Amino acid sequence: MKILITNDDGIHSEGIYRLKLALEKIADVLVVAPDTERSAVGHAITISDPLRVTEVEKDGIFFGHAVNGTPADCVKIGISCLMEGKPDIVVSGINLGPNTATNIIYSGTVSAAAESVIMGIPSMALSLASFTVQEYEFTCKLAVELVAKILKNGLHEGTLLNVNVPALKEEEIEGIVITRQGKGRYEEFFDKRVDPFNRTYYWLSGKRMMIDSDNDIDDVVVTQNKVSITPISYELTNTDMLQKLKSWDIER
Amino acid sequence: MKILITNDDGIHSEGIYRLKLALEKIADVLVVAPDTERSAVGHAITISDPLRVTEVEKDGIFFGHAVNGTPADCVKIGISCLMEGKPDIVVSGINLGPNTATNIIYSGTVSAAAESVIMGIPSMALSLASFTVQEYEFTCKLAVELVAKILKNGLHEGTLLNVNVPALKEEEIEGIVITRQGKGRYEEFFDKRVDPFNRTYYWLSGKRMMIDSDNDIDDVVVTQNKVSITPISYELTNTDMLQKLKSWDIER
Repeated sequence: MKILITNDDGIHSEGIYRLKLALEKIADVLVVAPDTERSAVGHAITISDPLRVTEVEKDGIFFGHAVNGTPADCVKIGISCLMEGKPDIVVSGINLGPNTATNIIYSGTVSAAAESVIMGIPSMALSLASFTVQEYEFTCKLAVELVAKILKNGLHEGTLLNVNVPALKEEEIEGIVITRQGKGRYEEFFDKRVDPFNRTYYWLSGKRMMIDSDNDIDDVVVTQNKVSITPISYELTNTDMLQKLKSWDIER
Repeated sequence: MKILITNDDGIHSEGIYRLKLALEKIADVLVVAPDTERSAVGHAITISDPLRVTEVEKDGIFFGHAVNGTPADCVKIGISCLMEGKPDIVVSGINLGPNTATNIIYSGTVSAAAESVIMGIPSMALSLASFTVQEYEFTCKLAVELVAKILKNGLHEGTLLNVNVPALKEEEIEGIVITRQGKGRYEEFFDKRVDPFNRTYYWLSGKRMMIDSDNDIDDVVVTQNKVSITPISYELTNTDMLQKLKSWDIER
């Protein structure tokens, strides 16, 4: 079995290191990840600049390839140029911080997994639902279990699993739930500041808003100390609106 | 009526200039756009760096605000900080090059419109289906018509219109069709090169693949010299896969 691993926190993050250690027990693993943190880059790809690839060592041995690009770039170049043959699955993570609800669309972690399914290879995005508590052990164990289930059962074309795990020890986790993407988002504002040269700048800030309350919604489940697993795909057509548009008298 | 205009080709592009000239005949218009081209940035947002805003003049008068960020950043900061009150609608474009099928997810143009509907404001993305022929006249006329229709009829929550127009004169355009997003994508490869300092670099390249053939698919319609209008939303849950996952025996 061959697994390509990437992330958006960068190749030097603890999450990707722990994920590699876990998955190389069950497969040949290749890490291809951004050379620095690329959080919130969404599905950005690099088309106007060249990409460079450098080898990174850890613990005195080859760890993986660092790319001066986005998570989606890493999947593209990893599969096209760096891996021998195609991977059986791409695993993106382990991200520090949840990727749930509306915020999925800004996520480099999820977009790397999306790039993989566009290229016809099953994938999974793994996020730890905390920005500070680096409790990776259960996520690593679950990653091994889910890789086996995905390869055994298969995913629908163009569909990936988006997995969010509470930053808790296994015995504190209260369940694993198949979920839907919620509508929660950040309520945002810009902090307007003045730099040492007296020039104005703006910094995006905000706080997370829970909008949903149903027990099968991704961000609700995570607050209940349960793992959320959401199947997502990028079929964006809104078919209800499509029918309604037919009555707008714009077609000719 | 108040309209916020943005794009991903940058504030100095011809497309946004022509769009502003057209829409300021029917509304108060504010342009807030990236200071340079930000194509293929997808839904990237800037969270680790400050944003700066500068005023840009054209034809000797104020044209709009340039932001050192992504199209989604421009919508956020435009609505939150730069416009007085909220816009009635956000219009993104006119992009040079089509935004159809799978490629929508890489599009800064479409992501700006998506950011707007996330913030609760109706929006539309406008693209000219050519990378070279700058034939904006019919797109501008259609923009005025569609803004009126959207404000009269309303769009479903979280849904935007993704409009692709053949780069032709009005009399050569053979129709306007309500469409679904296709599965077409780029077949990509990396061009591996050596720079003047003998270092390797990679450049993404590829050619567009048509996969669909139905007459109600966005990229098919555009090749038939017709305008494509697709209602899209970012509800990503794959409900069929969700039901199937229930049988995987992972829930606890």
